[in-house]
This record gives sequence, C-alpha cells and structure tokens, in this order.
Amino acid sequence: MVVHISLEKDVLRSNQEWAERNRLMFKENGIHTINLVSSPGSGKTSILEKAIPILRDWLQLGVIEGDVMTTLDAERIASLGIKAVQINTRGACHLDAKMIHEALQQLPLSEIDLLFIENVGNLVCPADFDLGEQERITILSVTEGVDKVEKYPYVFQNADAVLLNKIDLLPYLDFNLPRFDAEIQKLNPIASVYRMSAANGEGVRLWSEHLIQKLKKKHPESE
Amino acid sequence: MVVHISLEKDVLRSNQEWAERNRLMFKENGIHTINLVSSPGSGKTSILEKAIPILRDWLQLGVIEGDVMTTLDAERIASLGIKAVQINTRGACHLDAKMIHEALQQLPLSEIDLLFIENVGNLVCPADFDLGEQERITILSVTEGVDKVEKYPYVFQNADAVLLNKIDLLPYLDFNLPRFDAEIQKLNPIASVYRMSAANGEGVRLWSEHLIQKLKKKHPESE
Repeated sequence: MVVHISLEKDVLRSNQEWAERNRLMFKENGIHTINLVSSPGSGKTSILEKAIPILRDWLQLGVIEGDVMTTLDAERIASLGIKAVQINTRGACHLDAKMIHEALQQLPLSEIDLLFIENVGNLVCPADFDLGEQERITILSVTEGVDKVEKYPYVFQNADAVLLNKIDLLPYLDFNLPRFDAEIQKLNPIASVYRMSAANGEGVRLWSEHLIQKLKKKHPESE
Repeated sequence: MVVHISLEKDVLRSNQEWAERNRLMFKENGIHTINLVSSPGSGKTSILEKAIPILRDWLQLGVIEGDVMTTLDAERIASLGIKAVQINTRGACHLDAKMIHEALQQLPLSEIDLLFIENVGNLVCPADFDLGEQERITILSVTEGVDKVEKYPYVFQNADAVLLNKIDLLPYLDFNLPRFDAEIQKLNPIASVYRMSAANGEGVRLWSEHLIQKLKKKHPESE
C-alpha cells in the first residue's frame, strides 16, 4: 500500500501541473470557472438548466459535463443552445485537470465569460482534484439528509459556496435546517450558502444575480 | 498512467484474495452477507432501521458500517441493540475486502445469521470491490432521478436486488417509474426489484420477509 500511496501523490502532483495550465488559460481568456460537486442526483444539471436563462442575458456561457458514462447531461445543456462538452471518465469517480485541459480544446475560449464544470456525481473523489477553477461549489439536496455535511466534510470545507437544493421538498422531510447551517458554519464559515429549488426555480435567481454581480465587478470593462 | 492501471490490477487481485477469505469465513459460520451500495443519502441506514425490527424476530443480525468519517451510522444501528462495527475508510470512496476482514474480528461470527455491510455512499467506487458477500443490493432513491441507472450502470448490473426507496415522495417528483423498470430490466433482467419507503415503512416488510424466507430455505435445520 505504500507504493499505492506514493503513486497517489504522483497522480496528485501531475494533476496540479495540469490545473495550473488550465488556470493560466482561464486567466488569459478572462474566464471565470466554477467546479460543481455533489452526490448523484443532487441537481447539478437541473440548477444549470434554471440558471442559464438568467445568466445568458449578461454572460457568455460554456459547460463541461463529467460523467462515468452517457452524454445525457451534455445533451440537456446543449438543447438550451449553450456550448457543452462531455467528458466520459470511463469508470473514474471524478474529473481531473488533464481531462479538463483536453475538453478546453473543444471550446471557443475567447468567447466564454463563465464556464461551469459539472463533476462526476460523488461526494468523495472530486475533493482532492483541483481542476484549475476559480470557484468550487458543493451542492447538497435536502433529500440526502443533513448528516451528509458531517459525513463528507472535505467537499464542504473546500467549497466557496454551498447550494442547498430541493427545498420545495422540505415540507415532506425531516431535514433540520438550523443544524445544516450550524454544520456548514463550523466547517466553513466563509462559504456563501444559498437555498434553492431547481424544480420550481426558487432561489436560483438570487444566486445567479450574485454571480453576475461578482463577474461584472471582476471585469468592469465588459459593462 | 500504465503504471497506475497495472497497480489497480494488483489492488483488485489482492482484494479478491481477501474477499475469498471472507467468503470462506461466512460459509463456515453460516452467515448470509449483503453488501448495500448506493449514493450518499439514498437511505441505506434508514432502511436497515426499519427492517431490523422485522428481521430480528427470525435472524441474528450484525452490521458493518462503512464511512469516510464519523460513526453516526453505527451509533444509529447500535441503538437498536444490534452488533455494529464502524469502518472509517479515511478518505477512500469504498470498502475493500481487507477492511471487512479486520472488522469481522470484532463480531461474534458464530452468533450471526445475516450480516449487512453498508458501503460508503457512492455509485462508482464500490462496484469493483468484491467484499466476499453472497448478495449485493443497490439502492436508488426516487429523489435522485431515473437517469442514474443509465449513468451509473455498473452498480445496477452487478446487483442481486435493487431497492427503490423514498417512494412516499413520488407525488412531488417527476420520476418515471416505467422508465426505471425498463432500464433495470435492460441492464439486469434477473435482479429482484422492491419499491419501498424507509420514511413510512411501506414495502420494507415485503423485502424483509422475502429475505427471511430465502435464509430459512438455505438453513432449514435452523427452523
């Protein structure tokens, strides 16, 4: 197992080099990149489907979809007229920076302001892999249970923002909102927390508008 | 990456050896072992909490809980008076057969008829790792979306049974039950499929009673 661990270190070091290359490409092209991490079925694609019609009025968008198999999510995004590239990880439980680097060759980088990377549905593996993104967002849906913050702390600790999705289902669940807020506060007091429902759109506009404001501040010349 | 892949093969070969040792121990002790696989928050522990009061009238139970961090699930099971051992994988996204072998040293094997192993919440990593179990059960909750079968096919292909949980929430969701049945039928036509709700108990009794029947047939002398 020692061999395995030292190899893991090599894998992470190599990943870091690719991540730095990606970061440079994002910077050169003025792209803000967001890495979306969550369990399978927490609503990453559904949130994007609701946010894109708001964001596209202000920003040029691109999406990289990561999945073990299938191109279902990329098709959903492409049907909105957004440039979407699908990465199939062929069994790997996370995206890595090299996969992203290859996907970037297929996108018109100079035309993109905001690039979403939808990671493989997983609360463990994506935590260690920097993709070169400027912002990492972890999504939890209320149906998964409030204990998931404590059980999978890494993905919440490293997040710049946390989206709590499916709040339309709160009346039918035993989900302790104050405990959720307290757990996030304890692990990651500087994370922005947004409550939303991709099903009915509640809260998606607020998050989207904050995103637009932030990017406008970052690139005031584009106003 | 070639090195990485060949090492992966070594890891899997070593895992297989430990799995065979576990399988022998289960056989020698007349233990039926079930490996429970699902996303985080699909309801593995909640289903066990509802099934244990039914199963314990007929069978001696044991539970091994796998988690990245925390002992929350083992505490929930132990509070029902069931022997529960917690494995913390320290970052790994699945249990392996050696971890199980070590956990078995802490259980009174000769007193157990049915041993549940709750894997780490993950639809990717656990698929490749045989733990020596006789039965693998994959759980999907309706809140995760029907597309997860197609997106994470391995865990459904290798399952002996599939539990569809949280059906109490179906009225509030856009979950296509016929499509779910068709996807499972296509991937794994011999899997038994049970619909249930760990929240209100619906369907848990049927599954539990089928389990009791199966184990009684296997060990008729214990009747």
